[in-house]
Amino acid sequence: MSGSSIGKLFSVTTWGESHGSAVGVTIDGCPANLLLSESQIQQYLNRRRPGQSEFTTSRKETDHAELLSGVFQGKTTGTPLSFIIRNTDHHSKDYNELSAVFRPGHGDYTYQAKYGIRDYRGGGRSSGRETVGRVAAGAVAVLLLKELGVTLTAFTKAIGPIDIPTEKYFFKEISNNLLYMPNTDYADKAKTYLQEVRQKGDSCGGVIECIVEGMPTGVGEPVFDKLDARLAAAVMSIGGVKSVEFGDGIKAAGSLGSQNNDQFTARDNQIQKESNHSGGVLAGISDGSPLIVRVGVKPTPSIAVPQNTVTNEGKMCTLSTHGRHDPVIVPRAVVVVEAMVAITLVDLLLQNMGSRLDYLKQIYHCSHNFF
Amino acid sequence: MSGSSIGKLFSVTTWGESHGSAVGVTIDGCPANLLLSESQIQQYLNRRRPGQSEFTTSRKETDHAELLSGVFQGKTTGTPLSFIIRNTDHHSKDYNELSAVFRPGHGDYTYQAKYGIRDYRGGGRSSGRETVGRVAAGAVAVLLLKELGVTLTAFTKAIGPIDIPTEKYFFKEISNNLLYMPNTDYADKAKTYLQEVRQKGDSCGGVIECIVEGMPTGVGEPVFDKLDARLAAAVMSIGGVKSVEFGDGIKAAGSLGSQNNDQFTARDNQIQKESNHSGGVLAGISDGSPLIVRVGVKPTPSIAVPQNTVTNEGKMCTLSTHGRHDPVIVPRAVVVVEAMVAITLVDLLLQNMGSRLDYLKQIYHCSHNFF
Amino acid sequence: MSGSSIGKLFSVTTWGESHGSAVGVTIDGCPANLLLSESQIQQYLNRRRPGQSEFTTSRKETDHAELLSGVFQGKTTGTPLSFIIRNTDHHSKDYNELSAVFRPGHGDYTYQAKYGIRDYRGGGRSSGRETVGRVAAGAVAVLLLKELGVTLTAFTKAIGPIDIPTEKYFFKEISNNLLYMPNTDYADKAKTYLQEVRQKGDSCGGVIECIVEGMPTGVGEPVFDKLDARLAAAVMSIGGVKSVEFGDGIKAAGSLGSQNNDQFTARDNQIQKESNHSGGVLAGISDGSPLIVRVGVKPTPSIAVPQNTVTNEGKMCTLSTHGRHDPVIVPRAVVVVEAMVAITLVDLLLQNMGSRLDYLKQIYHCSHNFF
Amino acid sequence: MSGSSIGKLFSVTTWGESHGSAVGVTIDGCPANLLLSESQIQQYLNRRRPGQSEFTTSRKETDHAELLSGVFQGKTTGTPLSFIIRNTDHHSKDYNELSAVFRPGHGDYTYQAKYGIRDYRGGGRSSGRETVGRVAAGAVAVLLLKELGVTLTAFTKAIGPIDIPTEKYFFKEISNNLLYMPNTDYADKAKTYLQEVRQKGDSCGGVIECIVEGMPTGVGEPVFDKLDARLAAAVMSIGGVKSVEFGDGIKAAGSLGSQNNDQFTARDNQIQKESNHSGGVLAGISDGSPLIVRVGVKPTPSIAVPQNTVTNEGKMCTLSTHGRHDPVIVPRAVVVVEAMVAITLVDLLLQNMGSRLDYLKQIYHCSHNFF
Repeated sequence: MSGSSIGKLFSVTTWGESHGSAVGVTIDGCPANLLLSESQIQQYLNRRRPGQSEFTTSRKETDHAELLSGVFQGKTTGTPLSFIIRNTDHHSKDYNELSAVFRPGHGDYTYQAKYGIRDYRGGGRSSGRETVGRVAAGAVAVLLLKELGVTLTAFTKAIGPIDIPTEKYFFKEISNNLLYMPNTDYADKAKTYLQEVRQKGDSCGGVIECIVEGMPTGVGEPVFDKLDARLAAAVMSIGGVKSVEFGDGIKAAGSLGSQNNDQFTARDNQIQKESNHSGGVLAGISDGSPLIVRVGVKPTPSIAVPQNTVTNEGKMCTLSTHGRHDPVIVPRAVVVVEAMVAITLVDLLLQNMGSRLDYLKQIYHCSHNFF
Repeated sequence: MSGSSIGKLFSVTTWGESHGSAVGVTIDGCPANLLLSESQIQQYLNRRRPGQSEFTTSRKETDHAELLSGVFQGKTTGTPLSFIIRNTDHHSKDYNELSAVFRPGHGDYTYQAKYGIRDYRGGGRSSGRETVGRVAAGAVAVLLLKELGVTLTAFTKAIGPIDIPTEKYFFKEISNNLLYMPNTDYADKAKTYLQEVRQKGDSCGGVIECIVEGMPTGVGEPVFDKLDARLAAAVMSIGGVKSVEFGDGIKAAGSLGSQNNDQFTARDNQIQKESNHSGGVLAGISDGSPLIVRVGVKPTPSIAVPQNTVTNEGKMCTLSTHGRHDPVIVPRAVVVVEAMVAITLVDLLLQNMGSRLDYLKQIYHCSHNFF
Repeated sequence: MSGSSIGKLFSVTTWGESHGSAVGVTIDGCPANLLLSESQIQQYLNRRRPGQSEFTTSRKETDHAELLSGVFQGKTTGTPLSFIIRNTDHHSKDYNELSAVFRPGHGDYTYQAKYGIRDYRGGGRSSGRETVGRVAAGAVAVLLLKELGVTLTAFTKAIGPIDIPTEKYFFKEISNNLLYMPNTDYADKAKTYLQEVRQKGDSCGGVIECIVEGMPTGVGEPVFDKLDARLAAAVMSIGGVKSVEFGDGIKAAGSLGSQNNDQFTARDNQIQKESNHSGGVLAGISDGSPLIVRVGVKPTPSIAVPQNTVTNEGKMCTLSTHGRHDPVIVPRAVVVVEAMVAITLVDLLLQNMGSRLDYLKQIYHCSHNFF
Repeated sequence: MSGSSIGKLFSVTTWGESHGSAVGVTIDGCPANLLLSESQIQQYLNRRRPGQSEFTTSRKETDHAELLSGVFQGKTTGTPLSFIIRNTDHHSKDYNELSAVFRPGHGDYTYQAKYGIRDYRGGGRSSGRETVGRVAAGAVAVLLLKELGVTLTAFTKAIGPIDIPTEKYFFKEISNNLLYMPNTDYADKAKTYLQEVRQKGDSCGGVIECIVEGMPTGVGEPVFDKLDARLAAAVMSIGGVKSVEFGDGIKAAGSLGSQNNDQFTARDNQIQKESNHSGGVLAGISDGSPLIVRVGVKPTPSIAVPQNTVTNEGKMCTLSTHGRHDPVIVPRAVVVVEAMVAITLVDLLLQNMGSRLDYLKQIYHCSHNFF
């Protein structure tokens, strides 16, 4: 396989199955001397922990992340950080009946087709539980970015048809509701909508947005490692994401050049854009404006509504999923999107350090006194 | 920098600037014994050649791709294929006035910010001309895929507001119009729209779709190298692309689980999906249905409409671009999207070969007689 | 940093410090359906466990490797294998005095210079303990190779001046002595030599050889990923290794072409070499003869003999190391060399699967029935 | 295949066959603003050009390297540098007779076994001609290193049995003889030896050493990307190299810890080593002393002495090679070794830039004024 790592310099490798003994992550390439504690990671991880609202799975996981390496006397040493999170509340028996059937919308069939074997317990590797490791790595990335003055805000833009227009974003309200929406009124409507959906045994999707402020200009590589290309891969690798866009996104396709171009102005000896249709990236490189990434998430595939499917033996049957499932995964995926964006930004910030000869001279010409 | 290569096993590296002496590409990892000729590549390359319709730049490039290595007696040898395409019709003088100003919507400013230097002639490395190399590599990938029974169809779905609904796709009509639209009526409307846009000195964007048929099931890696994640990066790395989606894409976000799930059925001892909302990918792995990728392209940033901007010295000024520019890049980008999809698929098909022990046994247990 | 992973397709990532809470490894890219159990790994790991002979450190570690993921119902699933090995017998207090001084021959100084911080306890990340993870991964690789008919034999060729000539190799005797030498007489001499060295508070080095039989012909990539280039990196990455050679190695430099060339002969419709000066690799690709890799290992740097060095504050001082150190690391490094060779071979065997179009056709044209 | 690239950040990709139309190289990741001209590259390339002495092939190649991209107004722009070198004096007819036979010591057989096809003309991709691209890339790397105060000296240490001891190195004499030996007396002896070898229709090998001065301390990554591991792969990837060692190398295996350890001393507020048995690398990281790499090169496999071999059809036959071959490749390989060392050092210097948080802060906290 070999697809469980992301990042060229800030390299994140996750491992683990939903109902195995543990999940975890190794982060290789974290710069030395970052202050880092287990409790900081835990605080960030808690944002994706299940069982916090009525709309998330009732599976109870403390999701305690144990830090096993790479920190000494409270600081990173430059060597790999390894986190392990034990799986505690896994009811594998719930899944025994699923061992013999391919659930629609899930990876059961494609894993079986690829490997000729699958760990069917709770979705195995394709479970959302794999993202615990991503979020732990994201926590480290967010701390690094903070040191460089870069901050991220991720939130739920839409739940099903309840879609907050940009001009009604109130970021302070994100933390006021368990759906992480930047508008309490819309959050209330979404709550009502979700209750209806759940009552029907159905599920729905939504839209997540992440805005990054303080990005240095010049980050992202031309051609294949463009800032937006790398971010697109990072967020598209989250289960359930079906679309990704930057800035005006798909709307740009219907726009005119005279509307869509962001004009430049000079202010305080700096260049600034008068608008931000681009979403902070021009020709694949950060342009100094806030970075805006938006992803569309499909409805949770596990539903109580009966669906046609096929058994391992090729017999047709009907499946109705009852168990501990989120009627919508969007609110819990918010921090996962933020984590993936943060991980990608750190990687590209590191990659950009070699872009100019004078950067190298700055680092290597200063003398290192040891005493 | 180091972002000019894509692919882990089928590795494509492009080089060259719009107004340098040449552009080119090296393809490392093409399996041996594929029949390959310069003329096959040329035929494919001609699909992106400028100067073919009234809506593409009048720059005249024969775009002759010379094959310099990796083929012997008409077949690939397993060693790198290198293509060089000389730049012939570059009017660098046209760009001299642009040396001192940052064009809105272009990479001038971000390249300058990143590197402290830029080749301002025709956009340098960020020019669409870089994609010649991608298309040459795509031609090789398409030939490889054909050998495995995989075929690609890329086309223009929308030009500005002229958007063809899925049910009105007639693929045979794609080659009947220079906009590569699968519906002649819509193509006519789009043509009229483009004439209006151009008369105003403006530009517009559009939507490109690529459908892949015959994909083996099981291709794509779990977690970070998901089929859709890798494809997203590949197409997002094309200049001007601002959104990407798979299957129902962004519409899935507003859908219900009961609508969006593709139910399974058994037919002829095979599993099949009864619908294809997923766009051919489940949990990051190909599911046997046609793969459907859709990208949104922003309007060409070079427009005659006057725009505010800033000079190299930080003075504000007004810019109105006159020169040889496409009022819309979408039609010419169709083959680029197809090429990037093809390149990515070959890479993941190769990567998948190691997914099962029995595949290894199949390859390594057969005896190789030389005589 | 980002150097804790090796392998493009069979990707091995180690983490952990000598005196942290654990060390571990993640193996991504192991083909599915390999029979694998913790006890098989443990058996292999026991070969490097400390405290087995009088010449290895008295540190007592059970080195129990817990398998956390990637195996279901006794078989690999194609997803990452993660192993954790808890550190139990770490006497960090022994190292407190070393916190303020740079030990000659160790990485103390270079880690401090690189990172501005170091985990000085037991060498931290640069400790031989990091190799536990490598050996666990090597165990998996060895099992995979066995399935393909490839077997490895690694052993101690020399301890200090006690060097076994090739013609006196008796492989059955390797397991008869704790030095892993293929000649009991030489092992006895080496034992005597080691006792003398230890009495003087000194240490010594040696030579390790690994022979691989059953390698398919055609493995290894031209140019930079040559079989020998990749193996050289793999074994040189083991702490203390200062030289590596293949086949006749350095002796080839003093030889004549007429002596060093291996002539070909045809036998049973197969090509064979009449000799094996090349050590099984021609132009970077396996040639069907046994692969022969040989590495030179420097003396253990921790010695009781007093040495000049410098403190963290830049004061000169004298250091004499007393503690639990191996007077020679060679016997314990034998399995590490074997593991690194095995890991590299699996990676290149996987990489080679895409070398021919007919291999792809073989894999993708066979139909996969699920029922 | 996919093994024609080396380097993670300073990424070098070569392409081309001995008797194809051209060979070339793409260098991606060269920092911007390095002064670079074709003539500088040419000067460096001339060091490996054939036909300069009686001991090198009489093939006449001007080896003119055309620079096609990545430089604007005399400086690198941060985008890929592409070089093409046309093959002019290729007598493919000389090789027609070789199309049907596997030459001992060459890659003919292994390429055929791997790919089922081979470009037999002049060794195709496995020819020494491939190194032209490496040397062009090395020239760029050497210029970069010079800007950082790092200088390289490579030379011939031994030709067959004529081996210069370290204490008789006179570096100024390297350029006085066409064998690139740092001792004119030994060079004279080597010349006599070579004449004898050639008269017998035979060939010989030798040893090349490269010494690097001015290396910053702290370069090289722990574990798998150790400075010596990466260098070992880089030089072992040169055709004909059979051994590599650092510092005392293989001699360290027979040494004692008390002899082999380099003791530390403090001088001028800096730490220094009192000796350099380590060859400038401790625990995989540069230690501030000169870096010393030494490689053993096998005799040229093409010899006039008759050898047994096998034809494509499996018939045994006798082969005696007459043509334009170097009786020893060592002198021409000197600059190739230097180039591979330089390429690797640049890559690791770039990789090291992300090792500390304060390096990131240094780069990203300084404000970039554009005016």
